[in-house]
Amino acid sequence: MKETLIRKIKDVSLTDPILIEGLPGVGHVGKLVADHMVEALKADKIIEIYSPHFPPKVLVRNNGTIKQVRNEIYAYKGKENEPDLLLLIGDYQSATNEGHYELTGVFLDIAEQYGVKRIFALGGYGTGQFVDKPTVIGAVNRLELVEEMKQCGVTFHENEPGGGIIGASGLLLGLGGLRGIDAICLMGVTSGYIVDPKTAQEVLRVLSKSLMIDVEMQALEERAKEMEKIIGKLQEMEKAQAPYEVTNDDDLRYIG
Amino acid sequence: MKETLIRKIKDVSLTDPILIEGLPGVGHVGKLVADHMVEALKADKIIEIYSPHFPPKVLVRNNGTIKQVRNEIYAYKGKENEPDLLLLIGDYQSATNEGHYELTGVFLDIAEQYGVKRIFALGGYGTGQFVDKPTVIGAVNRLELVEEMKQCGVTFHENEPGGGIIGASGLLLGLGGLRGIDAICLMGVTSGYIVDPKTAQEVLRVLSKSLMIDVEMQALEERAKEMEKIIGKLQEMEKAQAPYEVTNDDDLRYIG
Amino acid sequence: MKETLIRKIKDVSLTDPILIEGLPGVGHVGKLVADHMVEALKADKIIEIYSPHFPPKVLVRNNGTIKQVRNEIYAYKGKENEPDLLLLIGDYQSATNEGHYELTGVFLDIAEQYGVKRIFALGGYGTGQFVDKPTVIGAVNRLELVEEMKQCGVTFHENEPGGGIIGASGLLLGLGGLRGIDAICLMGVTSGYIVDPKTAQEVLRVLSKSLMIDVEMQALEERAKEMEKIIGKLQEMEKAQAPYEVTNDDDLRYIG
Amino acid sequence: MKETLIRKIKDVSLTDPILIEGLPGVGHVGKLVADHMVEALKADKIIEIYSPHFPPKVLVRNNGTIKQVRNEIYAYKGKENEPDLLLLIGDYQSATNEGHYELTGVFLDIAEQYGVKRIFALGGYGTGQFVDKPTVIGAVNRLELVEEMKQCGVTFHENEPGGGIIGASGLLLGLGGLRGIDAICLMGVTSGYIVDPKTAQEVLRVLSKSLMIDVEMQALEERAKEMEKIIGKLQEMEKAQAPYEVTNDDDLRYIG
Repeated sequence: MKETLIRKIKDVSLTDPILIEGLPGVGHVGKLVADHMVEALKADKIIEIYSPHFPPKVLVRNNGTIKQVRNEIYAYKGKENEPDLLLLIGDYQSATNEGHYELTGVFLDIAEQYGVKRIFALGGYGTGQFVDKPTVIGAVNRLELVEEMKQCGVTFHENEPGGGIIGASGLLLGLGGLRGIDAICLMGVTSGYIVDPKTAQEVLRVLSKSLMIDVEMQALEERAKEMEKIIGKLQEMEKAQAPYEVTNDDDLRYIG
Repeated sequence: MKETLIRKIKDVSLTDPILIEGLPGVGHVGKLVADHMVEALKADKIIEIYSPHFPPKVLVRNNGTIKQVRNEIYAYKGKENEPDLLLLIGDYQSATNEGHYELTGVFLDIAEQYGVKRIFALGGYGTGQFVDKPTVIGAVNRLELVEEMKQCGVTFHENEPGGGIIGASGLLLGLGGLRGIDAICLMGVTSGYIVDPKTAQEVLRVLSKSLMIDVEMQALEERAKEMEKIIGKLQEMEKAQAPYEVTNDDDLRYIG
Repeated sequence: MKETLIRKIKDVSLTDPILIEGLPGVGHVGKLVADHMVEALKADKIIEIYSPHFPPKVLVRNNGTIKQVRNEIYAYKGKENEPDLLLLIGDYQSATNEGHYELTGVFLDIAEQYGVKRIFALGGYGTGQFVDKPTVIGAVNRLELVEEMKQCGVTFHENEPGGGIIGASGLLLGLGGLRGIDAICLMGVTSGYIVDPKTAQEVLRVLSKSLMIDVEMQALEERAKEMEKIIGKLQEMEKAQAPYEVTNDDDLRYIG
Repeated sequence: MKETLIRKIKDVSLTDPILIEGLPGVGHVGKLVADHMVEALKADKIIEIYSPHFPPKVLVRNNGTIKQVRNEIYAYKGKENEPDLLLLIGDYQSATNEGHYELTGVFLDIAEQYGVKRIFALGGYGTGQFVDKPTVIGAVNRLELVEEMKQCGVTFHENEPGGGIIGASGLLLGLGGLRGIDAICLMGVTSGYIVDPKTAQEVLRVLSKSLMIDVEMQALEERAKEMEKIIGKLQEMEKAQAPYEVTNDDDLRYIG
């Protein structure tokens, strides 16, 4: 397996779907929101993406079976006036720079096949300090989107985040723009120390408003606790096995 | 040499062989068991695999000749009711993430050519503590295999190993599953500090039971001591030569 | 996106243009000078270059829109006796060794298409000490150029810089020479601790003399201050987000 | 430039030439001997090899001109009963694992084109202690060569070097063997702390005896001193520029 593999699970027909990306990243905010949406909306898995740019590993489930690390795309057929959605979630992002470019290209190819005209990239913005009242800051790839997003409660700060936006979220905006697809990055302001359900709720609130889809929110808190536990265990195990590891720790550290 | 090179040494005809993977890994358990099986069963070398993903080096034998680092596949024709086996062993695993994916793809291509329908991936599970009574924990790529393996003495722990299974062992389960091949990972619980013959014996006991092949076990202890010596020397030399090394230490550290 | 992408923005017709490279590098000297020239000469952007060898990120502008990191080529039609120019600037250089070779190949392909016969590669030479009277040291890819550059105020030191010239500047001389294109590296001697407008002025003075183009210099100081601020912010943010980053810090550190 | 580039400088016709490799490596022993032989034998440069696997840099000569880092092959037509030689020297070895495999493949392709049937790979064997009476230890890729080399004064130690032989020297033996070419590695035992002319003389003595070519030796000492100076300067500069470097230090450190 030298190439990224796109495995179609199910055929669906969607109308102008909006792509929501919630891969692992800063403070686990994007992953938390998107994983939750997949479940709350009962979205259907339609595509699995495997890639040599992901860490070379499988995860072990509670029942003893394994799961090859991957990214997945789920489809949601909007009810009544709701728009159709594609939800991109996964265990990891690319472990290499080049892989981010390749995989984002793959995501955008799929988006174009389904006629996607708008992308929301969800993430966190780590401040290093605990946040009392979580807010959502934004970045967009077309100026007109700033005003629209402000209407939904998104804040824009001059030249922030100062370090730019790294990984799939950033490239979906950058490379998406080169293909003429509107893209908006929603970053929940978070300490970065914990999996932060309050910040995730705020991101979901903004997103729901823009999508005009109501998503139940109470399960978010529990999901955050569970995710925190899994990440803690993952890190602990990686530390324990570090001296014997086959591969470079840097390439393998958990992102989510 | 830009591509992985598969060098056929010998033609054999096998019936539904089972593939046993014992490449270097945590606590050297898998390598110890598989190297031992190759010798105890007098298996025939049929394939050598060379790859730019292995460290760029040769090993030096006692007689002054060298050995290009590689992976090897041995064949064993089962006697009477025994199944046929393919045994995958080697000096190193891939030194890169992408290489793990590519090489596992190569292993699975070969497995499919020989009609392999089941894979055992052998490894260790390092706890960081010395283990009194070694056990074998398992992970599988099809739920029905859990019960079968429990019958052979394998333990399954909820969501363990928490850090997932990394390298060829993990990918043989993950990518093997995508090709519809059953695969089982047997991990001997070990401290990880030494080459652990007791744990290796336990893995071999479980494996023998499942394969219904008797393998002599006494030589395991001596082989463990010898392997410990070689690894010690290798690490010592690498440390001594580190300041002058041509290549990145991380990429070259011994795995086995 | 697996390959470097050359995006033509505008068609221009130039006569024997001289290529000026000012990508990020030691002390930000080259970037400072070239960015300034683009603005002061009101040069036209004709080409954007995107590559998987750049960090996988977008920068965020003051107005909330993003910019996919890239390299850019601007064209300047010389007035009267002035030569035509191509100016190569950008946010980053390649994040990988191989990428430097590939991208320099791309730059030289473009240079050849426009009939470039001479290249100036601008950079800094960090001494680790604050410099009272900035000077410009040179290196060339054809011996006859040494004398010519001395006439413009360039100093040549025996075997200096002793560590060679790394990145695009070096390779433009080396690989450019293999294609028969004259190339000169102008290195402003600088402490390396700050974005150094005095050193940049000296490089610009030498370059202006050789090109026989007058470039206004006063804005350089202000531009240096602004660049210093942006870099400071970038570094601060990268540090703050480091534990949660998706990608390897080494690959992402700002060069400019 | 995405691929390794072989640039033919001169056509020569040789009879069964022996290939001598002396690229940078442990203690600079191989490079010292081979560089010296090129000069002492007045060999002709016939091939230059450029590669994206070398560090992305140029070196600066005393006269202000640059040299793109590369490997070079020189030819020597043997006088009377002397054999013809190909001498492989260079500024660096590959900076990546994969590059070692690719470049060694390139070297062997060239060797086969010239009908090479025997290779000497020259290197050092660092002990970390100053060596009173330098010796030369060997490794070979065909058992019969052990006895022959002992006749020339080469020592063979059981299983030594314990860490194997890394880089081009190792792979020339390993991959050369796969192509049926005899190859011998001569490693001068050295502290590894300095560029060691005494050890180099010993390697040259052994090699001269085997080749039956007399090579003048006195210039070796002076060459060692000069090389020591250049390396010191290179390291100093790299340290000074480290915080501003475009590329990863690990990938760029001088090998020679």
